[in-house]
Amino acid sequence: MKTMTVEPCTLMIFGALGDLALRKLFPALYQLDRTALLSAEIRVLALDSSAGDGLIQVNRIVEQLRNHVPLHEQDDEVIGRLIDRIAYQCLDFTQQHDYGQLADRLGEGGQLIAYFATPAFLYGGICAGLAGAGLAERTRVVLEKPIGHDLASSRVVNEAVAKFFPEDRTYRIDHYLGKETVQNLVALRFANSLFETQWNQHHISHVEITVAEEVGIEGRWGYFDKAGQLRDMLQNHLLQLLCLIAMDPPSDLSADSIRDEKVKVLKALVPVGLAQLSDSVVRGQYVAGNSLGRVLPGYLEEENANAESDTETFVAMRVEVRNWRWAGMPFYLRTGKRMSEKQSQIVLHFKAPPHYIFAPAQRPLVGNKLIIRLQPNESIELQVMTKEQGLDRGMQLRGGPLQLNLASAPGRNRIPDAYERLILEVMQGNQNLFVRKDEIEHAWTWCDQLITGWEQQGDRPRPYQAGSWGPSASIALMARDGHSWYGDF
Amino acid sequence: MKTMTVEPCTLMIFGALGDLALRKLFPALYQLDRTALLSAEIRVLALDSSAGDGLIQVNRIVEQLRNHVPLHEQDDEVIGRLIDRIAYQCLDFTQQHDYGQLADRLGEGGQLIAYFATPAFLYGGICAGLAGAGLAERTRVVLEKPIGHDLASSRVVNEAVAKFFPEDRTYRIDHYLGKETVQNLVALRFANSLFETQWNQHHISHVEITVAEEVGIEGRWGYFDKAGQLRDMLQNHLLQLLCLIAMDPPSDLSADSIRDEKVKVLKALVPVGLAQLSDSVVRGQYVAGNSLGRVLPGYLEEENANAESDTETFVAMRVEVRNWRWAGMPFYLRTGKRMSEKQSQIVLHFKAPPHYIFAPAQRPLVGNKLIIRLQPNESIELQVMTKEQGLDRGMQLRGGPLQLNLASAPGRNRIPDAYERLILEVMQGNQNLFVRKDEIEHAWTWCDQLITGWEQQGDRPRPYQAGSWGPSASIALMARDGHSWYGDF
Repeated sequence: MKTMTVEPCTLMIFGALGDLALRKLFPALYQLDRTALLSAEIRVLALDSSAGDGLIQVNRIVEQLRNHVPLHEQDDEVIGRLIDRIAYQCLDFTQQHDYGQLADRLGEGGQLIAYFATPAFLYGGICAGLAGAGLAERTRVVLEKPIGHDLASSRVVNEAVAKFFPEDRTYRIDHYLGKETVQNLVALRFANSLFETQWNQHHISHVEITVAEEVGIEGRWGYFDKAGQLRDMLQNHLLQLLCLIAMDPPSDLSADSIRDEKVKVLKALVPVGLAQLSDSVVRGQYVAGNSLGRVLPGYLEEENANAESDTETFVAMRVEVRNWRWAGMPFYLRTGKRMSEKQSQIVLHFKAPPHYIFAPAQRPLVGNKLIIRLQPNESIELQVMTKEQGLDRGMQLRGGPLQLNLASAPGRNRIPDAYERLILEVMQGNQNLFVRKDEIEHAWTWCDQLITGWEQQGDRPRPYQAGSWGPSASIALMARDGHSWYGDF
Repeated sequence: MKTMTVEPCTLMIFGALGDLALRKLFPALYQLDRTALLSAEIRVLALDSSAGDGLIQVNRIVEQLRNHVPLHEQDDEVIGRLIDRIAYQCLDFTQQHDYGQLADRLGEGGQLIAYFATPAFLYGGICAGLAGAGLAERTRVVLEKPIGHDLASSRVVNEAVAKFFPEDRTYRIDHYLGKETVQNLVALRFANSLFETQWNQHHISHVEITVAEEVGIEGRWGYFDKAGQLRDMLQNHLLQLLCLIAMDPPSDLSADSIRDEKVKVLKALVPVGLAQLSDSVVRGQYVAGNSLGRVLPGYLEEENANAESDTETFVAMRVEVRNWRWAGMPFYLRTGKRMSEKQSQIVLHFKAPPHYIFAPAQRPLVGNKLIIRLQPNESIELQVMTKEQGLDRGMQLRGGPLQLNLASAPGRNRIPDAYERLILEVMQGNQNLFVRKDEIEHAWTWCDQLITGWEQQGDRPRPYQAGSWGPSASIALMARDGHSWYGDF
């Protein structure tokens, strides 16, 4: 891994007045500056199609910044510095002339980063524009997800970009890879023989990956309904987490060593044939429900909804990775909207000891668990059985957590947002935390067969109450193997 | 394991006015009563050779109690109850007539416990006395350590007791076995597959067991000088801890299943031949030193000291257990007086991962450790490597403790003293935490060969400064294998 040096560069943000840039990218830049990680030479060029005075647009950006940075972290001096860094330029993404103006403004030489915070159908045009203006050679491009909605459409986008930018200057974002805890997973696995030697189907009984959202559609009904939860969440975030859990140890930490191992996992994912589809995969769509006394509308009653949609807002599945490390062991993936609570976590269930010598009533408790929490609070917890303390407890066991709360690590009270890390990594030219083209393609290939299967079977999602943990079939999915989702209430 | 029911009984304490009874046994009875674990039917008969009014003696006992129970745990009502339970009887341990009086006082029937808090040479006589008075059949006998000073003398004591009491009514104390953390070691090993599957030489690099005392001889020079640290501490406490760490998993938690496994360890201890003696074992004797600005006398300058003594006050050794689980892996044992600090701990060093992919400077940090602390604060800690948090740290590792502080377990602010547990276990008729005759004999056999070796070689202990971590040869003992004592400063 490189040490912390960032070369001077200009970061171009395409779609600078869009939601992602305002909510995530500028706040991330602010935090990097505030924590002294952004050298003075780094400039930011905000690009969007809105005309109007540049200063007014920069003020609009800063105004939004104040809504997205916690009040106690707002510092007028840092905000002032950020304003000085940012320039705004109006740019019609489809006009080559505008890219010429951009090149004039940027002048000769200097590292460039082009962050595409726009819909993916624009990526190809922007790339052509940059290349036409002679800027491609010195630019790294950052592509936001989603890149396509299936293998074919993702190829179109990737190929349009690849025409002008080689893979080693193409950075595909999956912001889950920038999370502190996901980073820590690598350290945890490969620096601890206690875990790594047991990280296989001989010692682990099963693995759960849950990304539960409490929110619903949030005004994105039209967009979401075309995608569904499989494409929107599972194809990227959950499969990326699965790869990091399941990959074989890379020989080194270079970007391609890690990504080679991740691709091996995706290639080893067992396809779900039509015969197993309804047993192995549960689709759900929320209906009206309650949460904390609040009435929540169903998916088909949301703003702009179409009463006919059979798009899934929940998906749970049992997955196998057919290789030497994992063959025969189930991974359970689950993600949904309008669930009981916001909760992203990975739970590794270690096998119980083969023989049990303590009081029989406690037997179901036994089995170590490693719990990696990404949301709402990042933490790592190891569930260990110990003896209940005290003379009146005999040899009664207690499932005690050995907890590593990352936010409470000494002197480190704030966990940086994933985007801070990712922007920094692009500036450092480090591709570790970005998704390679073949990873995306293998992930789509695997998801496409599920979608095709659903279409062939005319599958309709099962209803579940908004504010619940999903359809009962999701519980049955694990129960058939003798397991249950950890932490559901 | 039995549940928490204690049958009515009478506990006879022989040597009730002695140091052990006053400092440990009566305070333990007080605490058991205070925490509602001592049923009203349990009577205590204090026996010693001092004549005088019984009430005055009981008051003397209670007076001492107030010195040995923390002030905030003193409760006049409980003390009152304890006074009501205790009766004192003057008894010349060598006079059969006195045992007759004792039998008269006790009357017919009822479970008896005879706790021998006297020197071991009296045990045989007391047993004969009890038997002569017809009390043996309904009595469990509790033998305090030390039982002899070598195999031959321990046999004399054990056989004198065995003449009247079968093994299943003989309870030999090693108070280390009553410690909460030692108990927890059993749960930790056998209820957690994460640990048990790695509990062998394939996964563990080495094990340390340290019992360091800060105190010196404490006015016991004459007694201690005849014994030395090997006999006084290692033969019992350290070998017992070694057995619990090294034993194979018992099929159940019955007393004999556990003790059978412990004996197997003692039998597999590799004898230290004359040729390896000076390499494998380090003896030390403290000379004057400093601790926190205080001048500490040397062993030969202590009160009543003999300037010629070559008794060891420190012993460190490298031990191997020749069986399938441990062959070739070193256990390092160390115990001494006048060390830097009071510290009893067991450290299991897991092997480092076979391949290392992080920053080279951190390599020496890597390797999981399980640290079981018995003193000064009982706790269990697992050292796990994680990533330093924060964007400026790259993939820098951090050795973070996952800590289980037993005293801070929810609702459990006080760790019971070992004697409380041991007294309760005797009352319950549970021999798990007591040392069987063959354990003691195997431990002596192994220690005797060391002592014989030292005598044959005319070995003299190496000097070490009072207030230090022992002779430098103790550091060299581990350094030759590439290790060092954990936590020394």
